[in-house]
Amino acid sequence: MNPTKLLSRKVTCGLDGQDSSYFLGWQEYQRNPYHPITNPSGIIQMGLAENQLSFDLLETWLASHPHATDFKISNGSSSLFRELALFQDYHGLPAFKLALAEFMSELRGNKVSFNPNKLVLTAGATSANETLVFCLANPGDAFLLPTPYYPGFDRDLKWRTGAQIIPIRCSSTNSFRLSKTALDNAYRRATKLKLQVKGIVITNPSNPLGTTMTSIELHTLVDFIEANNLHLICDEIYCGTNFIAPADFISIKQVLVKRPHLSNQVHIVYSLSKDLGLPGFRVGAIYSDNDLVLQAATKMSSFGLVSSQTQHLLATMLGDKEFTRNYIVENKKRLRERHNMLVNGLRMNGIECLESNAGLFCWVDMRHLLTKNSFDGEMELWKKIVYDVGLNISPGSSCHCAEPGWFRVCFANMTEATLDIAIQRLRKFVESSFVIRRQSRLGSAAAIACRWVRRLSAASERSLEQLSR
Amino acid sequence: MNPTKLLSRKVTCGLDGQDSSYFLGWQEYQRNPYHPITNPSGIIQMGLAENQLSFDLLETWLASHPHATDFKISNGSSSLFRELALFQDYHGLPAFKLALAEFMSELRGNKVSFNPNKLVLTAGATSANETLVFCLANPGDAFLLPTPYYPGFDRDLKWRTGAQIIPIRCSSTNSFRLSKTALDNAYRRATKLKLQVKGIVITNPSNPLGTTMTSIELHTLVDFIEANNLHLICDEIYCGTNFIAPADFISIKQVLVKRPHLSNQVHIVYSLSKDLGLPGFRVGAIYSDNDLVLQAATKMSSFGLVSSQTQHLLATMLGDKEFTRNYIVENKKRLRERHNMLVNGLRMNGIECLESNAGLFCWVDMRHLLTKNSFDGEMELWKKIVYDVGLNISPGSSCHCAEPGWFRVCFANMTEATLDIAIQRLRKFVESSFVIRRQSRLGSAAAIACRWVRRLSAASERSLEQLSR
Repeated sequence: MNPTKLLSRKVTCGLDGQDSSYFLGWQEYQRNPYHPITNPSGIIQMGLAENQLSFDLLETWLASHPHATDFKISNGSSSLFRELALFQDYHGLPAFKLALAEFMSELRGNKVSFNPNKLVLTAGATSANETLVFCLANPGDAFLLPTPYYPGFDRDLKWRTGAQIIPIRCSSTNSFRLSKTALDNAYRRATKLKLQVKGIVITNPSNPLGTTMTSIELHTLVDFIEANNLHLICDEIYCGTNFIAPADFISIKQVLVKRPHLSNQVHIVYSLSKDLGLPGFRVGAIYSDNDLVLQAATKMSSFGLVSSQTQHLLATMLGDKEFTRNYIVENKKRLRERHNMLVNGLRMNGIECLESNAGLFCWVDMRHLLTKNSFDGEMELWKKIVYDVGLNISPGSSCHCAEPGWFRVCFANMTEATLDIAIQRLRKFVESSFVIRRQSRLGSAAAIACRWVRRLSAASERSLEQLSR
Repeated sequence: MNPTKLLSRKVTCGLDGQDSSYFLGWQEYQRNPYHPITNPSGIIQMGLAENQLSFDLLETWLASHPHATDFKISNGSSSLFRELALFQDYHGLPAFKLALAEFMSELRGNKVSFNPNKLVLTAGATSANETLVFCLANPGDAFLLPTPYYPGFDRDLKWRTGAQIIPIRCSSTNSFRLSKTALDNAYRRATKLKLQVKGIVITNPSNPLGTTMTSIELHTLVDFIEANNLHLICDEIYCGTNFIAPADFISIKQVLVKRPHLSNQVHIVYSLSKDLGLPGFRVGAIYSDNDLVLQAATKMSSFGLVSSQTQHLLATMLGDKEFTRNYIVENKKRLRERHNMLVNGLRMNGIECLESNAGLFCWVDMRHLLTKNSFDGEMELWKKIVYDVGLNISPGSSCHCAEPGWFRVCFANMTEATLDIAIQRLRKFVESSFVIRRQSRLGSAAAIACRWVRRLSAASERSLEQLSR
């Protein structure tokens, strides 16, 4: 048999959304991963939005709560193991859903509450997002997404559902903020393409920007879905990472308090992969007030239920309110320190980040390091950074950014020592770039040098200021 | 907003395959579940193919292997908890895949071996089956399935993929065995409907028949997929339940040994929900020799990965060869005893089962209890059995059986005492049916009574014979 014959177009047409430099960078990293002792010249993984900063808190809790994992609690006649082994009710373990709902409220400063009966558990946010698209869209229907957006969305939202993504083009001129004009333009483009627009998908806090949406942006969005009768999917999986001031993050649920008539159209995605750093446990959730969506999503969750063993462990952990409160505060503190370390380290090298207050990454402006102002130039720079500098970072183009020269750089998936090495490597690269440029462009060398010196000097001053706070 | 407006057709058209009496029976059970003390007149759940017979073996193993669950093993610099918390590689934990592959070989008497690199882990067989359809079929393409088949397939194979199922109509006249004629007829019907047939899906051992396919049937199937250039999905999730003689079960992998040129077209589905009784842990797998299918299915497994915590536990458990060998033997012994108890109990009441050698259920012939020989008659009888007798069993119509009067009755999801009560309830029902019939049809009473007496008497003799073995 012809190997591709008789397979689906999903398999043969390469539309799995995994051919971007985002995934390619991972492959390069896997071929030559950095290790401080065994492979000190390997590639440092800065393309992975993992939170490894607070595992000690989880481990300390586990050590003092052995019953969360050992199946030894018995419930009268039936053993806990037996109960969990058999538990495949797609409504989820009630104790876990309650604890998760309360954790979600806690993360939002208890300004809003979540009803556990409106939660659908899924095997990670990947599955939650796809499930929502299956519920809301027919093949060919479209969702609008502000750019830059998480590269995985091309796989998660489009691949198996057949839905389309129309980018809402945000720009560095207003710090990539969402505007009514950008929304209108995207909607108009979709209409021109004769696509039925079903909704908007946002990540708030934003991946890859690391910023939270303002109240104005959120109201602009809600006005827009009201005017155009659309759904809004809010992926809030980074909500516990806003590390500057807790009030920085406004959940869409807070906006809905004053506009309850729209609650049927708004669906929240959550997961424990980022805030709690547990991607391996595959715990995601959909929160919706729309009964039909809830019913259908619950049935669809049969395709990706969460292990009952894991639900039980997390029910116990998240049910410990003292632990969760302390964890949230301490985790944010560590993220803030790490974020500052990266921002300051880059600044010392004349590299600025978009000002951010959340996430496990910075959105880094390397436009001045491009040899040509194009996406070809961006790929050229990216390859140098991956192969020569030895850092896997994600180019803006993989996030569908409309402007070349921006990169997502993760800071929470490594030790402080490794981040320090990454910053040192970048410094050497920036310095050598400067030397090479000076040599090759003698004509404009003086002007470039002046600009760079000014930039480096200003950067150093600002960094020193920050460090002394 | 109109509540159904702007939702997908999947949600609004009720095509989720969950409206059959199979699922309705579960709902009835949940409203009034039997409990020996608190609700002794409640409905006994005999519609759930769960294996609860060997939990003590798993629990004994767990008690003597605390490290399988307590995260305390450390791997040099990194803690086990940290490793598992972060592990989201969709290739799965190598140790678990190796142990699973070896367990799959062990279950097949080590007559064939499985390469762990050709396994894709999925969150249960539900997800494995859907993933394969996404890989093989475009919306509208068809798969042929022998009837009766597992009611969940209407959801798993069709709902989100848009694929179609064309039944291969098997008949009681040859004990529901698969024949070339039935295959040809189904293929012809699909062609007439202008459907592109992509493959055949079988469950072997069969759910709901509880029978294993003969070598002749398997070769008929393989000849058919070769002649028509089709895929074959073999759901072998009950392979460890063949309880009469181990040689009774022939895996499709054994058939392929002599026909390796077809291995690209054959895909096996497995899970630990039935043989090991762990549906709550959501562990399924696809095994395929087709590289393109493997690659695509691996990427799709992002939508339903298995919790790394659960992978670690099961890697340790299945890696214990002495344990798995003993478990397989003892579990089969218990299933055999339970199966015999049901078969003999029914026989004492004049009810025969299709002769079977596997599964967690019997395929029960109640045609003589129908008041009319139609699916209406079957539903009438089913309702009596659910509401009056208090047993939730699955009517053949929910399994797309072409002949009314057959029911799937599960025997491994309850205690022996509960099964005994279920049999007693059935006896009373059969006796009262006889009395009612005699009263209402005086004309033919004598003939009916004679037939019943003959049947009951023959049944008693056979049962006594069996019990004395």
